[in-house]
Parts: sequence; structure tokens; C-alpha cells
Amino acid sequence: MPVGTQATVKTLAPPDLEDLGAQIVLANAYHLYLRPGPDLIASLGGLHRFMAWPHSILTDSGGFQVMSLGHLRKVTEEGVCFRSHIDGSEHFLTPERVVEIEEQLGADIIMAFDECAMQPADYRYTREAMERTHRWAERCLRAHQRGDQALFGIVQGGVYPDLRRESSRFLASLDFPGYGIGGLSVGEPKDQMWAALEEVMPFLPPYRPRYLMGVGSPEDLVEGIARGVDMFDCVLPTRVARNGAFFTANGRCNIRNARFRTQREPLDPHCDCYTCRTFSAAYLHHLFRSEELLAYRLATIHNLRFLVRLVERCREAILKGYFAQFREEFLSSYRPTDQEVRLKQKRKWVESHGRALG
Amino acid sequence: MPVGTQATVKTLAPPDLEDLGAQIVLANAYHLYLRPGPDLIASLGGLHRFMAWPHSILTDSGGFQVMSLGHLRKVTEEGVCFRSHIDGSEHFLTPERVVEIEEQLGADIIMAFDECAMQPADYRYTREAMERTHRWAERCLRAHQRGDQALFGIVQGGVYPDLRRESSRFLASLDFPGYGIGGLSVGEPKDQMWAALEEVMPFLPPYRPRYLMGVGSPEDLVEGIARGVDMFDCVLPTRVARNGAFFTANGRCNIRNARFRTQREPLDPHCDCYTCRTFSAAYLHHLFRSEELLAYRLATIHNLRFLVRLVERCREAILKGYFAQFREEFLSSYRPTDQEVRLKQKRKWVESHGRALG
Repeated sequence: MPVGTQATVKTLAPPDLEDLGAQIVLANAYHLYLRPGPDLIASLGGLHRFMAWPHSILTDSGGFQVMSLGHLRKVTEEGVCFRSHIDGSEHFLTPERVVEIEEQLGADIIMAFDECAMQPADYRYTREAMERTHRWAERCLRAHQRGDQALFGIVQGGVYPDLRRESSRFLASLDFPGYGIGGLSVGEPKDQMWAALEEVMPFLPPYRPRYLMGVGSPEDLVEGIARGVDMFDCVLPTRVARNGAFFTANGRCNIRNARFRTQREPLDPHCDCYTCRTFSAAYLHHLFRSEELLAYRLATIHNLRFLVRLVERCREAILKGYFAQFREEFLSSYRPTDQEVRLKQKRKWVESHGRALG
Repeated sequence: MPVGTQATVKTLAPPDLEDLGAQIVLANAYHLYLRPGPDLIASLGGLHRFMAWPHSILTDSGGFQVMSLGHLRKVTEEGVCFRSHIDGSEHFLTPERVVEIEEQLGADIIMAFDECAMQPADYRYTREAMERTHRWAERCLRAHQRGDQALFGIVQGGVYPDLRRESSRFLASLDFPGYGIGGLSVGEPKDQMWAALEEVMPFLPPYRPRYLMGVGSPEDLVEGIARGVDMFDCVLPTRVARNGAFFTANGRCNIRNARFRTQREPLDPHCDCYTCRTFSAAYLHHLFRSEELLAYRLATIHNLRFLVRLVERCREAILKGYFAQFREEFLSSYRPTDQEVRLKQKRKWVESHGRALG
């Protein structure tokens, strides 16, 4: 799902999204609650009409965003008190209020309000946040009234296997029409992320969509699909695009690199997106070097189309029975260029996590 | 002509321009000479292919841009020596070299290299610059080889009636296929601009296109057309769009204004552009307040479409014989909101011009 936090997928208009094959986009209830406000969007006919996107929309509840505010928020059993990142005004959100906001926005899929334990978090606090997330999930279910919206629960439990098992078992018992897996890809090492996911999956009903929140990169999509994930969202493809980073079958590369200055061919000759169908890599290089706004849109189109096509290819491979081979081939040729950066992050995380665990 | 200085009309892709009815776009030989360079663009098949715009292109010679560099340039009879605004590197451009660059770029219409006397300029210097512009026009004609490009001469002469008459008479005698009128709309009061234009027009061949360079605003387009102008270019519609200023039949307004926060209707209900066909003013207000990049594109589309439609309506009014009435009605209802700002500029100009005249 392309991410359109503020009711717009950054740099793209709806026809761009249709053209690249997006079926659903994500928006964020936290951001839209603060600006322009759910009353306004409701009075204008809801989110679909507001952003002129007649296809599916999912709203995240903003649990993650509120928790990211750090010392600007305070969690109680009733809800979260926080200060707006825009103007510092004080707000109080409860599970009931968040469901009401998401009903006003009117997305097709809405997420329950959860408490995402920010990493690194010790076992005791992670359990506490998970248990509150469970009670809030029940409150969201009771508060939810619109029959034309699917309310998804969110599994928490950090990197602790027993908590992940407990959380998925509990949420499955509430019989949601779909499940988010939250609190992953927030700084923990990749092997811990996959281990946590593997604890969760056996307990979620196989015929309900499973949505790995905040993931991800091309390689993570393939790894997630291999473990049974159906839905993903991440700012990565659009954010790195605006820095000039492009996904290709061989990995990430940056269009600002001097080797693209004279390249007559498109950036990725195998890509069927508007950008690669229309422009040389040399032109994109020129736009980025000249800081022209069109650059960001063309790069965004490419990266989103790359992920949509990747998922299409995964689906086909699964249906035709050669997914294991596809996965192996893709991962052996796709090289995330920032491996160095990732290793550094991992070392840092392990260090601070160790400290938090005492 | 929408302005695409660096081989891109800021924020728009070619289909956006086709959709809003643009027939021709402008690019700048000075900017493209410095980056990415005419050799590169030629080796990639020329400007049309580079920017994926199969319709008409006009390249300005960059005379105005080079002169704008102030103390960073030095004019001699042979040409202009200047330092790049990008990296400070030293360059020397002559009329012959500029024509060569424009031939490499491959636009349909190319402009002669001229010396635009920066305002305020006294009579003596304005005459000197004009006479050099005439000699350079002859050198451009001699240097020009591509038969598939139209080379336009540029009339100069500042705000001095006799110089304007002399310049247009001289350039008309060189039998260019079209004429630019340069050195206007560079800070002088509007009445002086129109007076200078009126001196020029009688001497230019009526069946050759007449292009008022660097103009303009909706009201200036109508006033220019009333005096016989056929072509215009200006960064105004695209630049002010990125600040949230929109053209409407009643004048300029700014979408950031609080009154648009809840407006369900499009910004201009009479407009047929993609933006007004698709989005409420409230959504545009939200995008601008949230500093979303899509805002700049949607506003640019609207302003350019407004000008294209305005010129279409002028053309129809001329053909059907009611242009005088159309002009009066348009100008009485169109209110440039920054009239205060303009009056202030005028006072300032008259003051400094008076000083320069000694």
C-alpha cells in the first residue's frame, strides 16, 4: 500500500497511482485528526472524495505515531494524552474516539488503536503495553458501528516469542476480519523481526488478511510473503525516491551517481512504469541535479511500480508453485546498497537493547 | 508559452501540459548550456526527446539571464564573459556560439543573442546596448545553419521611444521569420512598457509572429494582445502557483486564505482544468497548509490552464469581432490583488530611474 499519510501519496495525483497499479492506499488518522480534522473531511463527503481516490483506503489508527512522540505523550488505561507535533496543542485519544475518527474519515479498512512499545523495550513494559493493546482492541470492537468498514486488530509483543504467541492467540479469539502485526521493523535486527513474525503467523486465521505494518523494502516484502503476509505499507519507496534512490532488479542505486549522467537508456530497462517508458536515466539525473520538483514524482512512480510488480510476480509464483525458487533468485540478485548502514544500526540496537534489559 | 527553463516546466510532466492545452514550451539555452550541456542533449537526440515533449519548443538565447548576472559578467563587442551561477566557472558566449548551442538543443524557434540593458538604464547606454544587439542579430543570422529552425530577432531600446522605433525598423529590415520584443517588464512602470510596445508594433511585419518576452500576468496578456502581440512567456503563473496564488476571473487569490478551509466547490467553478475538475478548494488548502508537493503541481496546472483559456478566448473574440468589449469586461472584473505592491514598486523605480538619468 502506497503511504498517503496526509491524504496524498507524496508527489502523486490519483491517476498516477491508478497507472502504476495501486489498488489501495494508506492514510493516517492521527495526522488527519490534527489537520484538517475529521469533521471537515466528513462534511466534504469522506476521505475517498476528499482525496479523489475512488478505490480502497486503509487508515492507520495513529497508535504508532502517538507513541513516537516520546515525552510529548502520556499513556493511561483510558487512552493517550499528547501534544500535537504541529502546534503543541493538547489532545486526548481513547480507543473509542479513534474508532469514531476513523468512521468519520470513512476508509474501507480501519486499524484498532494500539500501544506500540517503542524499541528497545524490556519484557515487563512490552507485556504491559501488549495487555493494554488487547483491552483496547476489545473496546475498539465494541465502539465500531459502521458495517461498511473492516476493523483490523493489531498484534503486539515486541521481540519476545511468548508475548507474540499470546498476542496473536488472543486477537484471533476476537474474530477480527483482518490482522495487523505491529511493533516490528522499528529498529530491531532483521533476524529478530522474522523470528517474531514466525511466532505470530500460526495463530492467525489463514483466510483473513495479515498485514505487516511499516514494512518495507523489496527484500522484506519477499521475506514477509514467504512467511504468509498479505499486506504491507512503508514510507520507504516514496521517501528514498525523493532522495534519488531507485529500486532495480539488481538492488538500490542512486540516480545522482555520475554514471547516469549520459545514460540514454531508462534507469531500469526492465521496468514498465511511466518514468522508465518515457525518460532516459540522463534526464532523471539532470532533474535531480537541478533540484526540479518533477524529479521526485518520476522517482516515486518508479519505486511504487517496482513494488507493485514485485508483489504481482510473487503472487504469480505462488499460484504457479515456484515461489521458493523465485524468492531465492530475487534475493540473490537484489542488493540493498546500504548494507553497511544497516550493520551499523544493528550493532547500535543490540548495544542499547542490552542496556535496557539490564 | 509555459516556461521550462531547465527542460522541465516546474512540477509538470508532458501529459499534464498536453492536457491543459499547451502547444509550445520555452526552455533556456543559458541554463541548459551550463547544465547538462548542449553536447549531451544533442547526443541524446535533442531537447524534444530529452524532455519527452514532441510538440513545439522555443529556446531563449539567455541574453537576459547573462545580463542579470550583474558584476559576474563583462560585455565586449565580441561577446559576454561571465561566471556560472551554479559553480562560478568562467564562460565566454558570442552570438555565433549561442546559435550553435541552440542548434545543438534543436528547438523549433530559437532567439538571437541580445544585450538587454538592465533597468534603470540611461539613454546613452541603452543606445549602445541596442546598437550592439543589432550587430549581434546580423552575426546570429550569418551563423545560423539549420533550415528546420526559425531564428527570431529581438527588439531592444529600453523605454526610449526613438530607440524602440529605430530598433524595430532595423530588425524588420533583416527579415526575420519572427520578432521578440525584449527589455520590457523588467521593473519599469506599466504605462512606459505599453508606450514602448506601441512604438515598436507599427514597424514589425504584420504577418510575422510578435513575441513579448517575459510577460506576463493575465491582465498584461490581454493588454499585449490588444496591441498586436502573438506570443508571451513568463515564470509568473508557475512561480506564484507554488506560493498558493491562483488566477480566477475575479483576480488573483491565495488558497492559504482561511476562507478556503471548508470550501466544497473547486477553487474556480468556471475552470475546466484537471485540478478544478477533481478537487475541492478545501483539499488544495489542506495540501498547501501541509506543504505537500502535490499542491504545487495542482496549482501550476490551474494557472497555466487559466492563461491558455484566456488566450483562446481572446482569439475567439478577435475572430468574431468583439475583442474590444471582451478586453473591457475582463479588465474591469480581473483584480490583481497585489496592486499595492505594484504601486510601491513603481514609485521606487521612478525614483531610481530619475537618479540614473541624473
